[in-house]
Amino acid sequence: MGIHLDGNQYGKSEVRVFKVERAERDGRDDVRDLTVDVTLRGDFDAVHVEGDNTGLPATDTMRNVVYAFAAERPLDDLPAFGAALVTHFLGLGPVRAARVRLREHPWERLDGGTHPHAFQRGAGGTRVEWAEGDPEGVLHASGVEDLLVLRTTASGFSGFDRDRFTTLPETDDRILATLVSARWDHEPGAAGLEAAWPAVRDTLLAAFADHFSPSVQFTLHRMGRAVLEAHPAVERIHLSLPNRHHLPFDVARFGVEAAGAVFEPTTAPYGLIEATVERD
Amino acid sequence: MGIHLDGNQYGKSEVRVFKVERAERDGRDDVRDLTVDVTLRGDFDAVHVEGDNTGLPATDTMRNVVYAFAAERPLDDLPAFGAALVTHFLGLGPVRAARVRLREHPWERLDGGTHPHAFQRGAGGTRVEWAEGDPEGVLHASGVEDLLVLRTTASGFSGFDRDRFTTLPETDDRILATLVSARWDHEPGAAGLEAAWPAVRDTLLAAFADHFSPSVQFTLHRMGRAVLEAHPAVERIHLSLPNRHHLPFDVARFGVEAAGAVFEPTTAPYGLIEATVERD
Amino acid sequence: MGIHLDGNQYGKSEVRVFKVERAERDGRDDVRDLTVDVTLRGDFDAVHVEGDNTGLPATDTMRNVVYAFAAERPLDDLPAFGAALVTHFLGLGPVRAARVRLREHPWERLDGGTHPHAFQRGAGGTRVEWAEGDPEGVLHASGVEDLLVLRTTASGFSGFDRDRFTTLPETDDRILATLVSARWDHEPGAAGLEAAWPAVRDTLLAAFADHFSPSVQFTLHRMGRAVLEAHPAVERIHLSLPNRHHLPFDVARFGVEAAGAVFEPTTAPYGLIEATVERD
Amino acid sequence: MGIHLDGNQYGKSEVRVFKVERAERDGRDDVRDLTVDVTLRGDFDAVHVEGDNTGLPATDTMRNVVYAFAAERPLDDLPAFGAALVTHFLGLGPVRAARVRLREHPWERLDGGTHPHAFQRGAGGTRVEWAEGDPEGVLHASGVEDLLVLRTTASGFSGFDRDRFTTLPETDDRILATLVSARWDHEPGAAGLEAAWPAVRDTLLAAFADHFSPSVQFTLHRMGRAVLEAHPAVERIHLSLPNRHHLPFDVARFGVEAAGAVFEPTTAPYGLIEATVERD
Repeated sequence: MGIHLDGNQYGKSEVRVFKVERAERDGRDDVRDLTVDVTLRGDFDAVHVEGDNTGLPATDTMRNVVYAFAAERPLDDLPAFGAALVTHFLGLGPVRAARVRLREHPWERLDGGTHPHAFQRGAGGTRVEWAEGDPEGVLHASGVEDLLVLRTTASGFSGFDRDRFTTLPETDDRILATLVSARWDHEPGAAGLEAAWPAVRDTLLAAFADHFSPSVQFTLHRMGRAVLEAHPAVERIHLSLPNRHHLPFDVARFGVEAAGAVFEPTTAPYGLIEATVERD
Repeated sequence: MGIHLDGNQYGKSEVRVFKVERAERDGRDDVRDLTVDVTLRGDFDAVHVEGDNTGLPATDTMRNVVYAFAAERPLDDLPAFGAALVTHFLGLGPVRAARVRLREHPWERLDGGTHPHAFQRGAGGTRVEWAEGDPEGVLHASGVEDLLVLRTTASGFSGFDRDRFTTLPETDDRILATLVSARWDHEPGAAGLEAAWPAVRDTLLAAFADHFSPSVQFTLHRMGRAVLEAHPAVERIHLSLPNRHHLPFDVARFGVEAAGAVFEPTTAPYGLIEATVERD
Repeated sequence: MGIHLDGNQYGKSEVRVFKVERAERDGRDDVRDLTVDVTLRGDFDAVHVEGDNTGLPATDTMRNVVYAFAAERPLDDLPAFGAALVTHFLGLGPVRAARVRLREHPWERLDGGTHPHAFQRGAGGTRVEWAEGDPEGVLHASGVEDLLVLRTTASGFSGFDRDRFTTLPETDDRILATLVSARWDHEPGAAGLEAAWPAVRDTLLAAFADHFSPSVQFTLHRMGRAVLEAHPAVERIHLSLPNRHHLPFDVARFGVEAAGAVFEPTTAPYGLIEATVERD
Repeated sequence: MGIHLDGNQYGKSEVRVFKVERAERDGRDDVRDLTVDVTLRGDFDAVHVEGDNTGLPATDTMRNVVYAFAAERPLDDLPAFGAALVTHFLGLGPVRAARVRLREHPWERLDGGTHPHAFQRGAGGTRVEWAEGDPEGVLHASGVEDLLVLRTTASGFSGFDRDRFTTLPETDDRILATLVSARWDHEPGAAGLEAAWPAVRDTLLAAFADHFSPSVQFTLHRMGRAVLEAHPAVERIHLSLPNRHHLPFDVARFGVEAAGAVFEPTTAPYGLIEATVERD
């Protein structure tokens, strides 16, 4: 009986890069606040089996490359930055495939958006950009994480299966809340990805809020379809929607005539709804 | 030799309450998303020493009270809500003092602030309100947590003590970032606390950003003083400013002529600067 | 142009179940502390596209099933418990595949392992069991998470690729620390899985510590191979080893003649090494 | 009206120090894994008010001192290490008081406690040591955090106050679980603090488990009293016991005749019970 290595990858995760770009023109500083993950695949069997590190790029070196590239290039186009990193790593001897994930943490200017150099953490979730390459080329995907959204009404859940373990009542009015994670793939060669991101994010937010939701599944599909309809260069989108249940809290038992509805927001357990919507 | 109980308190922590107030008038739903902590002090020696629970309010009951009160009252004034809870708990037999802490999690309306019932998690930090009472009355304090702010310039650190353990270079241009926690005490009987909170928060943000900062300490004092000067009903303010160091990353060693400055944001270790600023 | 749903799954995550089994025999209580995730796939296009929930098991019902099954069965065999849940869910109309993940949180008896009913949180990482089924049968995999291990010596890293971005010095003596995550697949029909888990975990720990490590990759492969060699029913094992770098802290610059070596443990950025080792 | 600075402190938090002590004698490496916080108070008004940093020790320097002291001294006595740091900082010009907190993260040797240089994260909670000094001397306190303990039986809660908001049923058999945080003060000049820590921890564990508990309050008091009775040099102990509620999950409604009791462990909301027990 033999034993072999079946697939391996390695890299540097959670490289934190903050860049300030001093705008001589208008006296305003621009910032980009990134967490970068680099993952490589290649011919590294000897590293694993024989302890021979010849040709192995160190993960410490990957970190240095990220900072060096961030310093010497403008960061005005994240997908281009990701592609530049991927291309660099593909040029290292035994590397056969490289993947870079960029997550951008949002900052908002103070003074109502006018301050030249002071910011606070912004809303709107974490932007994600992936660049994945091999000798045949580089593909791009974009995404969002940690986008917490909520609707107070126009959401129900009824008609579902009932058996002896079912206790959930049907409802035609509940709170719907979820922490959106999404990833959408761009067709090869798609351009304008930097500008596309906020547009797709806005489509997701609009589609989350524009209909009566009979289930998280329906809303997921609607959000995905809306992105594909509005953004022709998006080939498919995967959505992961954990249900942040807001449970009605029964106050009638205390003799309280509720002036408004109160709920207990919970984080666990939670329903988790995931699907991909794509073009035929 | 004797042993005695010296001070005890107990309560319910992290009661999550979400309230929707349906505005019949304009068709817009308002929301308040709170985490409530209740802490009581009183004559509970027998509970601890003899195992006699007579008269002891259960923490489960405290939770129920929070939901009941949230349901039957408008939540348009958080300090008033806190005071109502404190007053209720003070009315229970052996209770001698009660403290309620409310933390509010921000939501922003979608559609540029116009959507009637859909929201995303907002920026601006977590609002905090304390109400603390005993038979002599109820006092109020307000605060903010998790308010992440950053300046790209107009901050330095020099002239500090140097000894054989000192390696930090002096600088007249660094990034200054901190996660603001603050608590400010209102004079007894101060009114308009609901409206005061965003005004104080805005003063803090403005004062963070309006000067050259020679140290976190100086900026802390300036922020505190600004609040006292602009808000006569605030008696004192305590600020806790962890320094979110952004360390310059040396790319010159890679032969890179930096087109912009890159930094490594770090969370540990961190300088922690704390002080109270108060009126004479 | 058409748009379609391409793959969907849903379920309930983070169902927390704690079970006490009163041992009438010897007066000792046994405990199992689990976090359960259920994921289903099936014919749910109408749910997503038309908002028709007919036949859809609610995630709330899944939670109830987990508790009901945990109550009515002995929990002395986690893989069997997982399989029972999978089989149940496969019996629901539109369900085509079901996956259950069980994570067990360790408890250690007090009084040196002899107390009949008092425990503290134990060491040794989180046990994981997967059961995945479709109409063709149920497959099992086991794993571990959060197993933090460290070696103070007999670890080096040298001979790796050097280019203009490389600054890491070679070393033949460093600290090696990692937070082990592993998943190993059992051959169909493998028996004795309950007893196998601690044995595999012990093999992983022994193999982590029994050699000079020239790289995390080499140690990963050795750990994987050791499991396959010692446990014939394991078909393959995937290991994910984040490198918890312990950076030497230079104290010579302070004129300190080090009486011992001091390091700065860091959590980010980190090298992440992943591979699968399997039988031919 | 004037405004003044009322109390200020600053320091470096979360300095991570890992030390390996190579035991030439027996070939075994010993490790200490610490997180250190330093806090100073002093005459720093000019720093805050005028931006004059003269005499101010930088927090970066504090970090360096921690590593230098850890390197040049044996770490076989944490309280002595803390006192050495405190004494050093008190020697800096404007410093009037210094506090050092050491938290130790536990490691267990592999191979059943016999491996010379390989470890896994241990159980038993985080050890804490405080040293606090001013020109009059240095005082010591010790503590523990994150010590998760649980009893499956011999715990009840009844006889408590009932009003219209009370829904909690009385019980004479429940699970009692808590995450112990404790701090105990040593009398001035107390010796043998290094050896005392595990003994006090063991007393806490034994006292948690040796009685019928009618309330968390009663168990807290019993734990505190046990420490004072068994350890004459401890002057007082403060305990903070968050109640990790394990809620019975009703499976009877599913027609299940429970073979054992199942519970839902929860982390929020939670009862929080705190008190100090001290000598007369």
